[in-house]
Amino acid sequence: MRTGKAGGFLFEADIIGKIRRALASPAASAAPWLRLGLGDDAAILRPCLRQVAPRRPKHRANREWVLSCDAFLEGVHFRLDVHPARDIGYKALARAVSDLAAMGGRPRFFLLNLALPASRTGEWLDDFLAGVREASRKLDMSVVGGDTSRFPQLAINITVGGEVPAGQALTRSRARPGDLIFVTGTLGAAQLGLELHLRGLDRRSLRLALAAHLHPSIHLNLGRWLSGDKPSGPKIASAAIDTSDGLSTDLAHICDSSGVGAQILAGRLPMVRVPKECKRLRLDPQQLALHGGEDYQLLFTVRRGMAYQIPSQYQGVRITHIGEITRGAGIEIVQENGRRERLSPQGWDPFRK
Amino acid sequence: MRTGKAGGFLFEADIIGKIRRALASPAASAAPWLRLGLGDDAAILRPCLRQVAPRRPKHRANREWVLSCDAFLEGVHFRLDVHPARDIGYKALARAVSDLAAMGGRPRFFLLNLALPASRTGEWLDDFLAGVREASRKLDMSVVGGDTSRFPQLAINITVGGEVPAGQALTRSRARPGDLIFVTGTLGAAQLGLELHLRGLDRRSLRLALAAHLHPSIHLNLGRWLSGDKPSGPKIASAAIDTSDGLSTDLAHICDSSGVGAQILAGRLPMVRVPKECKRLRLDPQQLALHGGEDYQLLFTVRRGMAYQIPSQYQGVRITHIGEITRGAGIEIVQENGRRERLSPQGWDPFRK
Repeated sequence: MRTGKAGGFLFEADIIGKIRRALASPAASAAPWLRLGLGDDAAILRPCLRQVAPRRPKHRANREWVLSCDAFLEGVHFRLDVHPARDIGYKALARAVSDLAAMGGRPRFFLLNLALPASRTGEWLDDFLAGVREASRKLDMSVVGGDTSRFPQLAINITVGGEVPAGQALTRSRARPGDLIFVTGTLGAAQLGLELHLRGLDRRSLRLALAAHLHPSIHLNLGRWLSGDKPSGPKIASAAIDTSDGLSTDLAHICDSSGVGAQILAGRLPMVRVPKECKRLRLDPQQLALHGGEDYQLLFTVRRGMAYQIPSQYQGVRITHIGEITRGAGIEIVQENGRRERLSPQGWDPFRK
Repeated sequence: MRTGKAGGFLFEADIIGKIRRALASPAASAAPWLRLGLGDDAAILRPCLRQVAPRRPKHRANREWVLSCDAFLEGVHFRLDVHPARDIGYKALARAVSDLAAMGGRPRFFLLNLALPASRTGEWLDDFLAGVREASRKLDMSVVGGDTSRFPQLAINITVGGEVPAGQALTRSRARPGDLIFVTGTLGAAQLGLELHLRGLDRRSLRLALAAHLHPSIHLNLGRWLSGDKPSGPKIASAAIDTSDGLSTDLAHICDSSGVGAQILAGRLPMVRVPKECKRLRLDPQQLALHGGEDYQLLFTVRRGMAYQIPSQYQGVRITHIGEITRGAGIEIVQENGRRERLSPQGWDPFRK
C-alpha cells in the first residue's frame, strides 16, 4: 500500500494504518501463491505449480509476477487547464510502471480504468490514448483489460504487472546498517518542472526541467540489473524504492520497512540546478531535492562489499552515492558545514502546499 | 474491457472502440505469457516457465491467473445519501469478484485504490472497510496492495485476481449454434431492490429484493464447477458471463464475441416477483428481468450433448434453461403468446434512466 500524494503524511499514514488493520494480509504459509503482500511498491505473486513438464523450452524459468496499482486524479495529480491530454496519458502509465522498476521487474501488461465526463470523450480522449500508447510502446507493455465509466471528474486508475526472477524482486525491507545508499538522476527536477509549468514558463531553455515533470524517465533496465534479471545473475541491491513522494519520504519508507536509520550527505545530493531566469521564484535546490515529488528515480541500497559493482552511470543514467544506512531509527542529514540535522519526511503533493 | 454502467450503449461502445483501436493487444504468439487480453470479463495470464523442478509437491499444477478491475463510483454506482458505508464496501469487492466467477476462477487477491474526501476518513471509512473485510472473508481473498488519495468524490477501484486450471477459463467467445443457454438465480431482483431502496421501502417483507441489491451473492463454486476446477474435470460450459449490465446486454456480449445469435423464451425467464405492496410503482417484471443491471448471476452456454449434466440447482443456486444459441446475429425473444421480437441490449445504469 503506497502512501497517496494528497493529504499530510500523518493523514495518509492514518488511513493506511486503518486499511492494514482492517484487511490484514494472510501469513505466507497460508497463501503459498503470495510472496509479498501489502507494504511495498508492488505485490509479488508466485505461480502455483506441482509438476510442469518442460513442454515450452523457450519460456523463462522461475519467474514471479509483480503487481501494483496507481491512481492519477484530476485536480490532485494533474490539472486539465495546464496539462495536455497526451502528457496526462503518457505520465499515467509511466508513473504506475515506476513501481515495477523499483521492484526490478520487467513490465508486461496493464489494465486501464477510466472515469471521465462525457465532454472528454472526443478529441481529449484521442489525445490521452495517444499518450498512453506512446508510453506502452516505449515500456513494451500491453493493455489486457479495464473498465470505463462516466464521472464528473477525470479519475484514471492503472494496474500494472510485470515479471521478476523468482525470489529476486527488490523490496523495501532488506536494507541493513552499513549498506550504501544510491540514487539515480537528478533530484527535484520534476518539482522544478511543475513550478515552471504552472507559471507558463515553457521556454526551450527550460526544456529539461519540464520534461522531468511531463515525461518522467523510468529506469527499467537499471532496476532489472539491480534485481539480477538482466543480465541474469545474483541480486545486486539490498533494498529499493522509486522517489515518487520525494527523497525524504521515500527513504523513510525504506528505513521503516527495514527497521534501520540513514545518514545522508547534503553535499553529495544530485540536486537540480535552478536556471538563472527562475531566480525570482526563490526555489531552494536542496529543498526541491529532499522533498520534491514525482522524480521517479530509483533510490536503492547496496551491501558495502558489493558497492564496487555500482558504476557512476548505467546506460546513460547517473548513479550517485548519497549516504549510508545506520543502526537505530530516523534519517540524519549532514550539511556541508558539518551540521547534523534530523530529516523528517516532507514529501508533498504538488497541488496542495 | 467491460462496458461501464454509465452512459448509453453506443456511447460506451464508442469509447471502448477507441481504446481498443488505440491500444491493441499483442498477438498471443508475441506474448507467450498472455492467454487472453481485452474483450472478456478478465484477462488470463500464463506463468512463464522453462524447467521447474517439482520441489513443492503440495502446489497445484498448471494454473493460470485471471485478472480484472472494476470501478465503483459515487453518484454513478452508489449514492452516499442512501447506501450505508458497510454495504458499499461489501458490494465494491463482491461485484469485482463476479468477473472472476464468470471466468470459472478461484479468487485469491485484490488491490484496493481508494480516492475519498477527508470528511470520509473517520467513521465512514471504518464502516466501509468492515464491509470490504466481510466480503473478503466470505470470498476467501487477501488484499495485496493499493493506493489512497484525497479526492472530492468517492472513487473506489478494485483489481481482483484468481486462479483457473490452465486452458479451462470460461470465456465469452466459444458459444456455438445449438448450445443451450442457462442463467442462475432470479433476474431483475437487484433492480427491484434498488427501486425499493431509493424509495426508502426497506420493510422486512422486502428483504430478499433488498439483499439482491445491497449484498449480491457471487456464484463462485458454480463457476468453478463449470470450468472443471472443482471437482477437477473437463470444462462443462462453452461460454459464460456475469449479468452485471442486464441480461439483454450481457447475452449480446456473448453473441458478439462468439459470432452467433440467440433465442430466449420469455416464459422460461426466472423473473423477479414484484411484491403486492409495490404494485403502484408499475414495475414490469419482464423488463426488470431483461434489462435490470447488477444481478451478478451467471449466464452460460452448454453444448447440447452436455446439457444433461446441468442440474436444476447447484448448492442452493437455481439454474434455469432460458433459450439457445442460434446461427446468425441478434437476439430474438419468443413471448408466451408465440410472438417473436427482436431483443436489443438495453442494460442500463440505475442512476440515469
